[in-house]
This record gives sequence, structure tokens and C-alpha cells, in this order.
Amino acid sequence: MIRDLTDDEARAALPLKWEAAGVVPAWVAEMDFAQAEPITEALVDAVRRGALGYPPHSEELGATFAGFARRHWGWDVPADASVATGGVVGGMRLALEVLCPPGPVVVPVPCYPPFRDVVEVSGREIVPIELDPDADDASLDLAAVSRAFAGGARTLLLCNPHNPLGYVPRREELAALAALAHEYDARVVADEIHGPLVLPPLDPAGPTFTPYLSVDERGIAVTSASKAFNMPATHGAQLVVLDPADRARLDVVPIPAQNTWSSLGVIASVVAWRDCDDWLAALVDRLASQRSLLAELLDARLPGARTRPLEATYLAWIDLRKYGVDDPAGAALAHGVRLAPGQDYQPGLAGHVRLNLATSPERLERIVGGLAAALAQ
Amino acid sequence: MIRDLTDDEARAALPLKWEAAGVVPAWVAEMDFAQAEPITEALVDAVRRGALGYPPHSEELGATFAGFARRHWGWDVPADASVATGGVVGGMRLALEVLCPPGPVVVPVPCYPPFRDVVEVSGREIVPIELDPDADDASLDLAAVSRAFAGGARTLLLCNPHNPLGYVPRREELAALAALAHEYDARVVADEIHGPLVLPPLDPAGPTFTPYLSVDERGIAVTSASKAFNMPATHGAQLVVLDPADRARLDVVPIPAQNTWSSLGVIASVVAWRDCDDWLAALVDRLASQRSLLAELLDARLPGARTRPLEATYLAWIDLRKYGVDDPAGAALAHGVRLAPGQDYQPGLAGHVRLNLATSPERLERIVGGLAAALAQ
Ligand SMILES: Cc1ncc(COP(=O)(O)O)c(C=O)c1O
Ligand SMILES: Cc1ncc(COP(=O)(O)O)c(C=O)c1O
Repeated sequence: MIRDLTDDEARAALPLKWEAAGVVPAWVAEMDFAQAEPITEALVDAVRRGALGYPPHSEELGATFAGFARRHWGWDVPADASVATGGVVGGMRLALEVLCPPGPVVVPVPCYPPFRDVVEVSGREIVPIELDPDADDASLDLAAVSRAFAGGARTLLLCNPHNPLGYVPRREELAALAALAHEYDARVVADEIHGPLVLPPLDPAGPTFTPYLSVDERGIAVTSASKAFNMPATHGAQLVVLDPADRARLDVVPIPAQNTWSSLGVIASVVAWRDCDDWLAALVDRLASQRSLLAELLDARLPGARTRPLEATYLAWIDLRKYGVDDPAGAALAHGVRLAPGQDYQPGLAGHVRLNLATSPERLERIVGGLAAALAQ
Repeated sequence: MIRDLTDDEARAALPLKWEAAGVVPAWVAEMDFAQAEPITEALVDAVRRGALGYPPHSEELGATFAGFARRHWGWDVPADASVATGGVVGGMRLALEVLCPPGPVVVPVPCYPPFRDVVEVSGREIVPIELDPDADDASLDLAAVSRAFAGGARTLLLCNPHNPLGYVPRREELAALAALAHEYDARVVADEIHGPLVLPPLDPAGPTFTPYLSVDERGIAVTSASKAFNMPATHGAQLVVLDPADRARLDVVPIPAQNTWSSLGVIASVVAWRDCDDWLAALVDRLASQRSLLAELLDARLPGARTRPLEATYLAWIDLRKYGVDDPAGAALAHGVRLAPGQDYQPGLAGHVRLNLATSPERLERIVGGLAAALAQ
């Protein structure tokens, strides 16, 4: 059900990722797989019937998302909790500017780089909480969060599940975060774009996805079908808020601040949330076998690499400090492999890379091979 | 070459415009015509090959726009002058926040309502310059602009051609504006989304389109193929700036402020600028005959209506004050016709409507008929 794109197909489909000739790309978060058939058919149909105008007022996006949340996460979210927007990062900006108090914003680091930018663009001060690269697990440092709130911070940006750490925050951990937020009257903005991409647990006690709003009714989720279904070009995303007063504040935001959604984004998202469960199940299976293959390849070729369990996403965070190379991604590029440098996610952090494993087994071998060759020198 | 959509087709294609059952819509700026074939084919092809990821770095958008500008307006604009963005209004926000000084912003009124919002969202003060509804022509009040600049305003938002006035600013007028901007070190942001929609002149001295940057090298144009080619859902637009230093400032804007463009938007825009001249020529012809029909219908059914020549756009600005009805659009709605109320464009202005004539002749008759019936009561 998951069809691998050939190199030529991938180059035609994903021209940014595949930009450099002769380089196997494992950097930007796009998958070298054909998208789900129902999405293709819905978009082709939309284009052929001329549905290229403005989107209608409709609850379909929220209703289909609610169905998805119920089936996949056992979470009952009202159909009218979703507010359409054009992208997740633009939606976070909207959340910060419209719904969050003006105080400093806590950002756990490493983070997806636009997390830092969105704080700056919204004119807030950033309070980073850095993960110790030697920490056994990637859970949130709640003591540091508490200190940050006590020091005046009033918002926290959560990545649930986490890019680039591949970590799935536990329900108890999120509940404790929610308790802190309530204590300090702070708000949590949860980027849940990777929510559908929680992989089968590696051991029976492994995590499942906890929608942050299921533990904090004042939370603000920003999500999109665009990551799990590989279609950022459709410009569909949504804020999810449970309080009608929050929705009312979002509804009156003037057009230039709305990061407006697209009809094509709504059409594709509705189909993704409603008609693509089988494809998603096959994708998650496939990503799980890529995860196994990556573990084998690292064992064989880079035994000094250190990873935590990849619980979600197709982005593996790899600690290569043992090899004594400050910028392994830079070194790998000279060997025909493009990885994302760890320091993009945690400035100043040496010896880490983020590796995108959503590709063919054969390409994954070449990726790890190139990295190993680079570090062997 | 221009294919009219049936009611059913239009309802399926343009669900916002056609939202209300039993109402002939002539409000939002969408055309009840099928889009150009090359755009359909390019988008279908993009979807089928999975081009739903992030857009590549490419000069194709700027190069094809340059070709269009040369063929249609005799304007030589460098291929690298275009910076892609997701929409015109978002692009104006970007222009204001990144390129314009923080002082007050002049907005000629009536205006497309997001012009006022974008100033507010960017944290600037607005200096409106109201057109006297009795003025013979809709040219810019340059004396008022000069006073506003003398009073501290440092930016002006120009709509060239003008929505809702349907007016095409003359080259001399724009040159005089540019001279004022230079004198006061102010910048002009020109929304040129309606540039391709200048209609055949009604008399030999009638206007042609003057790209603002052709008279002011410090001007900032924001444009898109989405209006003339009826495809706002594709999220393609562009800022055009001639100074490489301006481009450098735009290039380093962080993602959350970029109002990011979509691959589909770039693909559709490239085809529109490059491959659709014949379709556009047929469209402009068709709009010109709709303009004639509207004039006949108003003569016959609403002889008290006052209009200035419709020089561009498919949006007619109609002064109905003679009929003594404050809100003619509200009255028409009760007769099954939805128009855009004049007061949306100029708060406090009574007795005006904006009428979208980009539909079938038969529907245009029903639109004018409904309005006439409403005003006859
Ligand atoms: C955590 C996270 N948030 C947001 C995005 C991007 O979302 P958008 O393109 O809708 O802004 C990504 C893309 O990889 C991501 O990993
Ligand atoms: C003058 C003008 N600018 C901008 C727009 C909308 O552009 P966008 O949807 O790209 O923001 C319109 C839409 O009718 C318009 O008339």
C-alpha cells in the first residue's frame, strides 16, 4: 500500500528535498512515498471541477478531525473546536498573538527551528530549556518549567510528539505540565502535527499518543494532516481550542493575520482525516520497519552512535559525539548524504544529526553508509 | 474559450460565493467561469506526480512573470525581482513589517477592506484619504497625499488598478505620486493583483496599465495570478522589488512571518504567467461585453444609477444614492441577489454597491433585475 518513489519520481515530486544532484537526501521532513490514493483523487477532482476559489464556511474539517481523534486516540473533541488556518507554524503565531499573554515563552530545546522564530516574530522573549544530551530519556524538565513560570513566563511551546527527539510525552508528564500551567495561569501551545505518526511501541509499556487538550482544557493545539499525509503544499492546518471564547477571539482576527487556509487544504485534510486510515496504518508499519533497519545499520556501521528509542515521527535524533566530529552532517554531505545538523535544533550542540528514514531500505543503507564513511575519516 | 459554469457547477466550484441557496451571488471577487485548461492540466499533473511537498528554490516564478510583464505591459522587470509569498494581503503585511518605515500609512478610501486591516495588524496608524463620491473621476488626491506625508506618514497603499473603483491610475498620476514619495522618503506598496484585468479602453484616450515600479524604482509591488486566473486556493503570490537590498531583507525573514507560498501556487502561477495569454485575452473580451451589458441593463432598469467608466477588474462600483436607500445591498438580498455593500469599502458611505459582473449574461440580468426590484419599493 505504501509505494516508494523512484529517484526520478522523488526528484519530480519533492524538488526541495532532492534539490542537489548526486546527493541522497535525509534532511527536510518529507517522505519519499506516493501519497494516499483518496487524497490524489480528491485533489484531482477538486482541480477538475474548478474548486480553486475561497473556502466555504464549514464544519467538515473539525468534524472529520473529531472522527479521526476518536478512532485513533479515543479522544472526544467537539466538531466545532477546530479553526482552519494555512499552516502549523503560522497557526502557532496566531495562537501566540491572539490567545496567549504577552509574557516570555518557554521553548524546550532541541526544537524545530521555527519554534524559536515564532516567539521572536510575535515579539515575545524566549526562555529556552535545554535537554542534557546525556539524559537517559527526553522527558520535559518540569522543575525547569516551574522555575520559568515562577520567573514570569506565561506560555510554553510543546512539540507533541517531539521533532527532532522522536519522543512521545507521557500522559502523567502532560498532566503535570497542565497542573503547572494552571498554577501560573500560563498557556501551553501544543504542536501536534506528528500525532498520527506514533510508531508501534518497542516494548509493552511503550507510549501511545496523548492529545494535550485531553489533559488541559485550556491548552491550544495546532495540527495538520500535512505531515503524516505528506502534503504541505495543500496549506491546510487547524487550531483546536475547547473554549468558545477562544474561538470567538480567533474568528474576528482580521484577514491579514489569519495565515489563511486554502480550499485545497481543507479538501485534502478532510479526506486524510476521514478516508485514509488504511494507508496510515500501512505507513506506520513501514516506518516501524525502517526504524528496525536503522537500528541494525547503526549497530553494524556506527556502533558508537547513541539513540533513544524512536517512539514517533520518521526523524531519528542521533548522538555521534563519540566520533569526535563537530558537524557530522557537514562531513556526510561530502560523502553524498544530506542530513539535518543537530545544531540547527539546539544551537551550540556538537556531534548530533537528525536523520529522515522515510525512504526506501536501499536509500537508508546508503544514508547510513555515507555517514559512516564520513565519520571514519 | 471562456466556459460559463452552470449553477450546479458554480456551486460545486465556488462554495463560498454560492453559499446561500436561491441567491444569485455578485459579491466576493470570484468568476463563474472555468479556469484556463493549462492551469487545470498543470495542477492535475502536479497532484498525480505527488508534488505536494515544499517548493524548491527557483527563479521560474520571477522569470515567467517577467515574460508576462514584457508581453503585456512592455515592462522589463528582472527575473530575480520576485519573492514568492502565499497571498497578496499576507505579502502586503510582509512589505509593511519588513520594508516600510514605522510611520503612519496612507490608505485611499474606498478600499478593499483588508487594506485597513493590514495597517492595523502591522501596528501602524492609518491615514485615510476619502474619495468624494461626487467626484468626476477616481484619481488620487495628490494634494491630500502630500499633506499626509508632510504630516508624518511614510507609506501609502496603492491599489493599481483599483478595487472597488475599477479605476486605472494614469502614468502621470503615478509619476507624481512617486515624486512625492521621494520627496518625503516614503514608500508606496502597490497591490497589482488586478493588473492583468485592464479592459479595452472605452475611448481612444483610455488608460493602459502602468506597473508602479516602472515609475518608482523604490516601489514595492505585490501581485498574484490568482485573481485574473481565478485560483486563490493555490496560494501563490509574489512581492516584486527592484533593490537587491530589499530582497536580501525579505530573504532572511523567519518562516513564521513569511506567509509561505505553496508548491501548487508556484506551479499554477508559472503556467498562468507563461501559457495562458489566449485565455486571458478571451476573458478580457468577455468581461468587456459584460461591461456593455451592465451599462445597458442599468440604463433600462436603474436609470438613476451613477457609475464612472469601468476601466479594469470585473467589479463595478455603483452609486445608487438617487434611490434613497441607505443599504441597497441589504435590500437586494431580500430579492435574491447578493452584492457587496459600499460601506464595507468606505465606512459610513450610504447608497453604494460593488457588483461582480464575471458571470453569465443571463445571471447579470437577474442581478440587475433583483437590485432594481429592491430599489423600486
Ligand atoms: C513539529 C513541526 N511543526 C510544524 C511543521 C511544519 O508545519 P507547517 O509547514 O504547516 O508550518 C513541521 C514540519 O516538519 C514540524 O516538524
Ligand atoms: C485588491 C485585492 N487585493 C488582494 C486580494 C486578495 O488577495 P489574496 O487572497 O492573495 O490575499 C483581492 C481579492 O479580491 C483584491 O481584490
